[in-house]
Amino acid sequence: MPNHARENWKRTPAPVLRHGSIWYQLLFMTGAQHLHIDQDRLLEDLRTLAGFGKLTTGVARVAYSDADTEARAWLRERMRQAGLETAVDGVGNVFGRTPGGRRAIVIGSHTDSVPVGGWLDGALGVVYGLEIARSVMERGLQDWIAVEAVSFMDEEGTYLPCVGSLSFCGEISADGIAAGHSLDGEPLGDAIARCGYADNRPVHADPGRHLAYLEAHIEQGPRLEAAGLAIGVVTGIVGIRRFRIEVTGEADHAGTVPMAMRKDAGHAAVLCAAALYREMAEAAGDDSVWNIGSIRFEPGADNVVPARAVMVLEMRDLSADVLDRMESAMSACLAATADQTGRPCEATQTLDVAPTAMDPGLMRHLEESASASGIASMHMPSGAGHDAMIVARRLPAAMLFIPSIRGKSHSEAENTDDADILGGCQVLASAVERISAAAV
Amino acid sequence: MPNHARENWKRTPAPVLRHGSIWYQLLFMTGAQHLHIDQDRLLEDLRTLAGFGKLTTGVARVAYSDADTEARAWLRERMRQAGLETAVDGVGNVFGRTPGGRRAIVIGSHTDSVPVGGWLDGALGVVYGLEIARSVMERGLQDWIAVEAVSFMDEEGTYLPCVGSLSFCGEISADGIAAGHSLDGEPLGDAIARCGYADNRPVHADPGRHLAYLEAHIEQGPRLEAAGLAIGVVTGIVGIRRFRIEVTGEADHAGTVPMAMRKDAGHAAVLCAAALYREMAEAAGDDSVWNIGSIRFEPGADNVVPARAVMVLEMRDLSADVLDRMESAMSACLAATADQTGRPCEATQTLDVAPTAMDPGLMRHLEESASASGIASMHMPSGAGHDAMIVARRLPAAMLFIPSIRGKSHSEAENTDDADILGGCQVLASAVERISAAAV
Repeated sequence: MPNHARENWKRTPAPVLRHGSIWYQLLFMTGAQHLHIDQDRLLEDLRTLAGFGKLTTGVARVAYSDADTEARAWLRERMRQAGLETAVDGVGNVFGRTPGGRRAIVIGSHTDSVPVGGWLDGALGVVYGLEIARSVMERGLQDWIAVEAVSFMDEEGTYLPCVGSLSFCGEISADGIAAGHSLDGEPLGDAIARCGYADNRPVHADPGRHLAYLEAHIEQGPRLEAAGLAIGVVTGIVGIRRFRIEVTGEADHAGTVPMAMRKDAGHAAVLCAAALYREMAEAAGDDSVWNIGSIRFEPGADNVVPARAVMVLEMRDLSADVLDRMESAMSACLAATADQTGRPCEATQTLDVAPTAMDPGLMRHLEESASASGIASMHMPSGAGHDAMIVARRLPAAMLFIPSIRGKSHSEAENTDDADILGGCQVLASAVERISAAAV
Repeated sequence: MPNHARENWKRTPAPVLRHGSIWYQLLFMTGAQHLHIDQDRLLEDLRTLAGFGKLTTGVARVAYSDADTEARAWLRERMRQAGLETAVDGVGNVFGRTPGGRRAIVIGSHTDSVPVGGWLDGALGVVYGLEIARSVMERGLQDWIAVEAVSFMDEEGTYLPCVGSLSFCGEISADGIAAGHSLDGEPLGDAIARCGYADNRPVHADPGRHLAYLEAHIEQGPRLEAAGLAIGVVTGIVGIRRFRIEVTGEADHAGTVPMAMRKDAGHAAVLCAAALYREMAEAAGDDSVWNIGSIRFEPGADNVVPARAVMVLEMRDLSADVLDRMESAMSACLAATADQTGRPCEATQTLDVAPTAMDPGLMRHLEESASASGIASMHMPSGAGHDAMIVARRLPAAMLFIPSIRGKSHSEAENTDDADILGGCQVLASAVERISAAAV
């Protein structure tokens, strides 16, 4: 791998064509559409990107893999070809910025995938950023519309979830890097060095240089499809609280110990889980979700009364108040089960992610852009985490969702109709013009 | 290992002392106690046996291990020293029989253990057999009381559960042997050859040579201790039906898919399990037990809605009718859950052991012997399987339980008060006299 340190922020010459300011300001005011999305090029770039780590219909392109590194090199080259100023930073984030002094709208997502992933998760938002920046350059609008396309590193957490956007926000220390490692045990620092990023300069979010962050993403859920809509304007990224619930009993021979003399942790855990499913529904808001994703009895033998049961409950909502209510309901279920069964039930929190609201002004621009394009949209929370959750701490941020066919994601089955892919990019481009015009 | 084939059934000289028949018959009729249990010798033999594969307070003496083979060689030597005719058969069962032509009462159990087991499970019944046969020899009663002490092979199923008693009953074929193997993958046939048993002749249960089978065992449960009683007369060995219950759903992202759109196999499985705990109690008899020993969700990730849930339910009772009722209740729970949740719930039977009744005449002898010894007893089912379950298919069989401290077994914590160990042997010896007298 070459050392990219010295070629950081290679500058391309400023474009020759420059348009007069008054003309453009007037057109921005009227909401007229200027950025032209090249539909064939957009789909072709998405398909080329899907070739790196290609599976049958999906991708295996985990962060810092050869496929990921090659995809990032390809992306940087596509950015260069478009006349963007490019950089790769010290964790492997790839940036491509329209030249000029305006504060840029950062547009992107990630190009790494889960071990067996789909072709659009992350890739969509990155290629949208590339295409919109390219469109700015082609129209010679870079003095009016500044765009910085980005692919953040390891959103999927092969080494450290969202390490790219955390680094962009200046929220990762050397100790933080040192703590990351793959399932195979490779330290994150070694992976960064192996891929040639170690000596690159960091690139940080800077409100003096960056106006906003826009991330387009496939929904990864079934709501848009079910509603028959092509655009979701994300209201916020849900907070997540995750708890390990442990119920303690005593192992006994399941043949020789009468029912009344047992201290069955499994029975208590099932009663507790049944109560949780019931009471969480009472405490939840309309958009809340919760899940018991795993449960196990120990020792787990057919003929042994369970000595211990462990399950994991997580709850997600946009509102911390609603999460508080759900957490209280959980605690009440545990206490009631312990009372009823005599088995201690304890919850330990293992994850606490605060909800992240999206910027209302940016949301309005997305909604109006969809509407102006004749595309009906809906407000919806993002139930999954995204880089926007991190970047929103430094810059005004918003997200646009397009439908996932049958809601599938994180699998080779992940897909979206071409028309929805193209429509989403058009709406985002339109929003970029509106946001730029509003910021003039 | 020596080849025991040619020394099968080494005969010892007949004892010199012989008593007249009328005198003994009269004493049998009055229920007088003649067999004298040597308390110190009984405890010392149990402790010596516990030295083979000794753990801190338990034993690791799985079938066909060095410790098991050495324990069986020691047992055979103790039988020889007592003047018994000994044999080791083609699977490693060890027999020691009082000389003479009468039909013998077979008394025994097994000397193999679970991987980390207690010192009394199996060993107790074998040493009782040795001690009672030895007492017969010492009193020169072998023309009136014939005893055949036995240690069956691999009751615990390291290679094949109850292979010893199955072989004794002529219920194991070469194919059956070929199917047995250890967790390490050693075929049972290789283990038999390795221990030098392969060329030994089989020894079979034969109503022409065998009068009955008596097996003493620790209870392995808490009922006698809870009742404050020292003797349990086993009414039968419970039947076991075991079912793998599988609930099918669909994996979804636990953040992005609204609750109402999920096909959550875990939720359905918890509702099903809660219903099972409730409805099995309704269908069960007083002595029925049931257990959900394991449950797991697949894929089992915190943030994925379970696509599948698998649990194992087993039910035990002495009555096939009660088991039928419990099985019907299970089926009703599955059908109701499938109706309620839309998730298919299927049960597959993985074990079906029919209940085994003990011989009422032998039970009465055990009960009267306890009573005559001033020891209060109770009737109780055996919730665990034993060699008696197999042997009862060929010979009238009965079992006597003595208490397990805190009900513990299959662990190093397994123990019984010395007084209960001695009392149990005395009651069994007394029963042997009564059964012999009744058969005169």
